[in-house]
Amino acid sequence: MADQQARPGEDKRPSEIPVIRWEEPPEGPVLILLDQTRLPSEEVELVCTDASALVEAIRSLAVRGAPVLGIAGAYGVALAAARGFDVDEAAEALESARPTAVNLSLGVRRGLAAYRDALAATGDPTAAATAALASAQALHREDAEASARMAAHGLALLDELMPGGGHRVLTHCNTGALVSGGEGTAFAVALAAHRVGRLRRLWVDETRPLLQGARLTAWEAARCGMAYTLLTDSAAGSLFAAGEVDAVLIGADRIAADGSVANKVGSYPLAVLARYHHVPFIVVAPVTTIDPDTPDGASIEVEQRPGFEVTEILTPQATAVGGGGGVPLAPLGTQAYNPAFDVTPPELVTAIVTEEGVVSPVTPEVLAALCAKARATPAV
Amino acid sequence: MADQQARPGEDKRPSEIPVIRWEEPPEGPVLILLDQTRLPSEEVELVCTDASALVEAIRSLAVRGAPVLGIAGAYGVALAAARGFDVDEAAEALESARPTAVNLSLGVRRGLAAYRDALAATGDPTAAATAALASAQALHREDAEASARMAAHGLALLDELMPGGGHRVLTHCNTGALVSGGEGTAFAVALAAHRVGRLRRLWVDETRPLLQGARLTAWEAARCGMAYTLLTDSAAGSLFAAGEVDAVLIGADRIAADGSVANKVGSYPLAVLARYHHVPFIVVAPVTTIDPDTPDGASIEVEQRPGFEVTEILTPQATAVGGGGGVPLAPLGTQAYNPAFDVTPPELVTAIVTEEGVVSPVTPEVLAALCAKARATPAV
Repeated sequence: MADQQARPGEDKRPSEIPVIRWEEPPEGPVLILLDQTRLPSEEVELVCTDASALVEAIRSLAVRGAPVLGIAGAYGVALAAARGFDVDEAAEALESARPTAVNLSLGVRRGLAAYRDALAATGDPTAAATAALASAQALHREDAEASARMAAHGLALLDELMPGGGHRVLTHCNTGALVSGGEGTAFAVALAAHRVGRLRRLWVDETRPLLQGARLTAWEAARCGMAYTLLTDSAAGSLFAAGEVDAVLIGADRIAADGSVANKVGSYPLAVLARYHHVPFIVVAPVTTIDPDTPDGASIEVEQRPGFEVTEILTPQATAVGGGGGVPLAPLGTQAYNPAFDVTPPELVTAIVTEEGVVSPVTPEVLAALCAKARATPAV
Repeated sequence: MADQQARPGEDKRPSEIPVIRWEEPPEGPVLILLDQTRLPSEEVELVCTDASALVEAIRSLAVRGAPVLGIAGAYGVALAAARGFDVDEAAEALESARPTAVNLSLGVRRGLAAYRDALAATGDPTAAATAALASAQALHREDAEASARMAAHGLALLDELMPGGGHRVLTHCNTGALVSGGEGTAFAVALAAHRVGRLRRLWVDETRPLLQGARLTAWEAARCGMAYTLLTDSAAGSLFAAGEVDAVLIGADRIAADGSVANKVGSYPLAVLARYHHVPFIVVAPVTTIDPDTPDGASIEVEQRPGFEVTEILTPQATAVGGGGGVPLAPLGTQAYNPAFDVTPPELVTAIVTEEGVVSPVTPEVLAALCAKARATPAV
């Protein structure tokens, strides 16, 4: 049974965007989420008092983005334990809230393992709940630390590639605090440059069809006081032609063993434009994004999403009349091609920035070595 | 004083999309326009009984697109003359309805010249009105003939470049019957391929920000029974990578003397992608689009349009709350970069198809010769 309520978000400093946090008011522990479906027009928090409220929030995309889903999953287990619910049942419900989200499943399992281990060792459910919470908090902290390290490595790379400073960075989709336990991936690098006064402009692709750039990245950039400008995805070509882009910074959904990068659709055209204009194309992602079991780009299965995301527009202010619940833009019956992401081959990627360092040039050998190094340093 | 009324559009065969037509019912001559602002959800005709109704239709973009605006301008003069209004005053009002639309002005002047010449020669306003109408009809017919010749030349080029047939063509913006006295430019070539059974698929870029692809090209393709699929502009990269595009066909707003092509923003990224994937990039435009007074791409001034076209979405079904009258997509106060078109350099253009023949490779010399040839064959 969902038990959630909305309350207005407080204004926070950039690094404190309250995407997800654990609180223990007198009436019992709660997990508080920023409702991303209401952005950018409203900053509303969801207060989850049990795992089912969290499941609902995950399903409705109030919380989204790979790393933050993992963190939410771990906290969800901790919440069920702290509130005295059936932890195994809660874990199962959380895992199946979005079955294809690998990080969600990993986070849930990590929290569950900590709970079970402590329960087995102590026989005390309270101690086990504490262990689950500690595990969620560790995951949260690790993710924030990885963000910070990626930002530092990425900023050093920008400064090395463009010693003059005054970087004009083009980004795509949303890769900031909203998807992370910290400040994100590609966005975190741009933010680091902004903090040291070396970001001249953040160019924000609107990112059709779901407009994560216009809705979320623009919101984060505005909140952080960055100089940013929004553009339609296809106006990026004009910026490159005018010499207005010094680097492209994007995240990654998955990186194959050969260095092929799957990311939000629209990333590959930017890579081709960047190559044509001799502009660095930089991918920022944690090591966990590198999947040694996916040998190359051709092995990455690209999710095809419903056509109504293209043929209709979803706005809270509009009366829904289309089959997808939105306002139709195209003639009824129009078929749409709507891949969720595209694949950029390694030869178009200037560098991959991870928390463990920078891979450039991108080769299977260096990526394998990086993964081996990361595995040799087990998580806390 | 506007005197216009809506009536439901009749279902027509593809070649008879009733974009603009002159009729003479018993109550007097009228100019009938298809209201493009209502597409694709409704096919509504506007019946203009005087030039001021037409001015209003031009201003509201009920009728749009360079060639069809010229035709509308000439008919507007004929309408004022036939209805006994002040023809000079009507011509002035029509010309200033969209001051930057060169074709509109040319069409108005052509109609006005025919009217004045006939009036001077005969002293008879009725004969002069007949002459103005004949001039508008000649312009209409010439444009339709130019369309047909471009379509034939373009189809021959497609067949030459891809002898196997089964063309998969990617197009951008709207270049069909809605902007033409005939069947258009790039779209007319795809339609010609469709008619002879050699169009396997028309890929339609949605064309942000104003969605001419989703709204208008998809409507025309559906009406013509073509196999078409809509996509977000940035999903084109995935199609190229998958080998699903045999040729890109676009129109042109202006072609410089060196062969640089100004067209709807998003054309240049397609040209770069096409080059990277060794796919022909073909521009289809009448000879009048070539401007010998614009030496090169850098001399083309690119119109910057209001940011609200990017930061808001305009849908008839939505409650307007943004500063531009639409529904906000981005945070309030977001600045947007919104160039109306971009410029593709001649080295990325495989061929320019005109009614006078195909220019390939694109060189200043061949373009100049083509313009000279066209000028040597004066319009009827």
